[in-house]
Amino acid sequence: MSGLSPERLARAYLVRVAEPPAPALAVFVAEVGPVDAADAVRKGTCPQRVAEETGARRELDLVRDDFAAAGRLGARLVIPEDDEWPAWPLLSLQLAHSRGIASAAPPLGLWVRGESRLDEAAEAAVAIVGARAASGYGENVAGEFAYGLAARGHAVISGAAYGIDGAAHRGALAADGVTVAVLGCGLDAGYPAGHVVLLNKIAGQGGLVISEYPPGTPPARHRFLVRNRLIAALSEGTVVVEAGRRSGARNTATSAGVLGKVVMAVPGPVTSAVSVGCHDLIRDSAATLVGSIEDVVDVVGRLSAQTPDRAKPRARATDGLGADALRVHESLERRRGKSAEQIATESGVPISRVRAVLPALELEGFAEHGESGWQLSKPRGRTRTEAGHGQPKRQGGAPDDKRRRGDA
Amino acid sequence: MSGLSPERLARAYLVRVAEPPAPALAVFVAEVGPVDAADAVRKGTCPQRVAEETGARRELDLVRDDFAAAGRLGARLVIPEDDEWPAWPLLSLQLAHSRGIASAAPPLGLWVRGESRLDEAAEAAVAIVGARAASGYGENVAGEFAYGLAARGHAVISGAAYGIDGAAHRGALAADGVTVAVLGCGLDAGYPAGHVVLLNKIAGQGGLVISEYPPGTPPARHRFLVRNRLIAALSEGTVVVEAGRRSGARNTATSAGVLGKVVMAVPGPVTSAVSVGCHDLIRDSAATLVGSIEDVVDVVGRLSAQTPDRAKPRARATDGLGADALRVHESLERRRGKSAEQIATESGVPISRVRAVLPALELEGFAEHGESGWQLSKPRGRTRTEAGHGQPKRQGGAPDDKRRRGDA
Repeated sequence: MSGLSPERLARAYLVRVAEPPAPALAVFVAEVGPVDAADAVRKGTCPQRVAEETGARRELDLVRDDFAAAGRLGARLVIPEDDEWPAWPLLSLQLAHSRGIASAAPPLGLWVRGESRLDEAAEAAVAIVGARAASGYGENVAGEFAYGLAARGHAVISGAAYGIDGAAHRGALAADGVTVAVLGCGLDAGYPAGHVVLLNKIAGQGGLVISEYPPGTPPARHRFLVRNRLIAALSEGTVVVEAGRRSGARNTATSAGVLGKVVMAVPGPVTSAVSVGCHDLIRDSAATLVGSIEDVVDVVGRLSAQTPDRAKPRARATDGLGADALRVHESLERRRGKSAEQIATESGVPISRVRAVLPALELEGFAEHGESGWQLSKPRGRTRTEAGHGQPKRQGGAPDDKRRRGDA
Repeated sequence: MSGLSPERLARAYLVRVAEPPAPALAVFVAEVGPVDAADAVRKGTCPQRVAEETGARRELDLVRDDFAAAGRLGARLVIPEDDEWPAWPLLSLQLAHSRGIASAAPPLGLWVRGESRLDEAAEAAVAIVGARAASGYGENVAGEFAYGLAARGHAVISGAAYGIDGAAHRGALAADGVTVAVLGCGLDAGYPAGHVVLLNKIAGQGGLVISEYPPGTPPARHRFLVRNRLIAALSEGTVVVEAGRRSGARNTATSAGVLGKVVMAVPGPVTSAVSVGCHDLIRDSAATLVGSIEDVVDVVGRLSAQTPDRAKPRARATDGLGADALRVHESLERRRGKSAEQIATESGVPISRVRAVLPALELEGFAEHGESGWQLSKPRGRTRTEAGHGQPKRQGGAPDDKRRRGDA
């Protein structure tokens, strides 16, 4: 426990007490920071709506146990204060949440198993998802697409379920690519049972197994739905390979649509029940038809072209911001700090939204919070680092540390 | 020959001398009528552009031979002056042509084999077309769709080719429905050889085999492309079941799009080369994805709901007219005739377009040409009839004749 920063300990506690998504808690943490938020939750002095989200478990302080369990799995808790936090992909959640979509509340932290950096894995990631009761055709296509995308340097994100998900992870592994499994249960849940070996392989071969649920959390249907927003958010686009009519595909598509991410669907024989959901998505213009890896790369490539290079100044980055975030950003100045209230007055954006948007802008390097208040961030001014536990374990610390600071 | 009206003889001659589509000839016939047009073509006194379209064959008067050959096949020449002329569906060609699309020039007449009335067959028709080198999956889908549509009272139109076309015709026949084969050669060409029996079955079992090419015309690639506009025009919508990347599907889709008809495409496995064309059409929004007969009926039903019932006054019928046609229609009066020049001045539509649009409006019963010029047609005022040859042969003339006049 010693060596873990107060922020990491606070977030481990909050991740444990609140069932995601926890919209009020997310706003509260953004406003007062994780340490004060955890303190207020523990003492019961937090706002009413935060208390409602955290009341049931707030006296259940299992942080020590969680880190011990994670240690046994070789897992770490990645938090927004870490450089490897996938701030850019998750900004989509933050912005959707600030538009009032409660179910898009961003995660307070992510338990992560595997050697790769989470932010790098999510950089040009494509999600490949679909039916558990997939056909041979569907599993072949999922495997082929995942192989081809991984071979081209795209990480393949999926949900580790049987059927399409498993085929996607295996396809990426076969190409020696990066694949990320996002679970709807704790990393130690051993679920699904038939994929325990696959999950070990993913974590051991350069991929990641991640979850916003603390160790010991059992799988549940609602958790898979909540989890789907992370699959959508962490990817540049989601490919639905096979899906029945009433399937998670619609949920995935809705999530991705809300987050402004692209949804792609693979057609199949009209005689196949597991292609019906894909055809519905395409017919309803909720998804773009993709028939080949090239089609997917085309779509994702177009998106990547719009995403600013992390190494370059974010001149065009504000293109991706929502209207409120843009107005807040425009009211910031380089040399003079302002209070959230002042920004609300100047921008005309409601104070509650300003409070939600500012941390998102900070995470992405658009804004910073100094002594005099919020202001435009200095170019390339972000170098948060934190030594010790909770960081990915790599051999040869020095070059890695340098890389982790984003100075390379 | 005696008993054939001058219009029918004139059109038989014109159909023979001009290779379709013959845009200048179509305009000329619309302006001066078929008898004078044929006379001018024969004598070489027609306008230059008409002469270019007809010069090569104008001395080749095979009308007698054509009717004799048609008689041996049990075929007739259906012309715009006949009540069974499918004026409403073909109006799409007339309007596209009047917008300057030369390749949409309407046919001058159609050689027809089979007992049904052509206008009735085309009333709620759906085209089902696709690859010759179809897969078993594609042929099954084509057959199933055709069966289901025919069973619901939709005629199934196709091109009589091997593969998808043949499966579509056979599916409709299996449902005891109406199917129409539109050929790119003369009705007596015996093409494709393997479908001669099928074509005989179509003509003998309540369907129709039609062509704008006179008897003896051999098949040719360009004729199939020209023929495609008729398949598109005669149908409310076209379903492409399977198509390779560089196939006639794109041509069919373009034709249908130009004519304001809906194009539908059936998806298939992304691993199948003959589904690539369908997927391209869907991805490019050139076609609506259909995965079931219900999907097709939905799309076609929506269209039918917009199409005025032939038995009712055409109150909403002008909804289907192009902008120019609407403006021309609006400048017509009930009690006072106007010249084309006068209408052009009043409507602001160029005189050449007015001249092309007026006959189309007349064909559809929106306008009529009286002694004082063009005027709004009297409600239900169309009762052109013509006895004798060139009409479909039915048993029991009386009720049929009544039906044919549209008085039922």
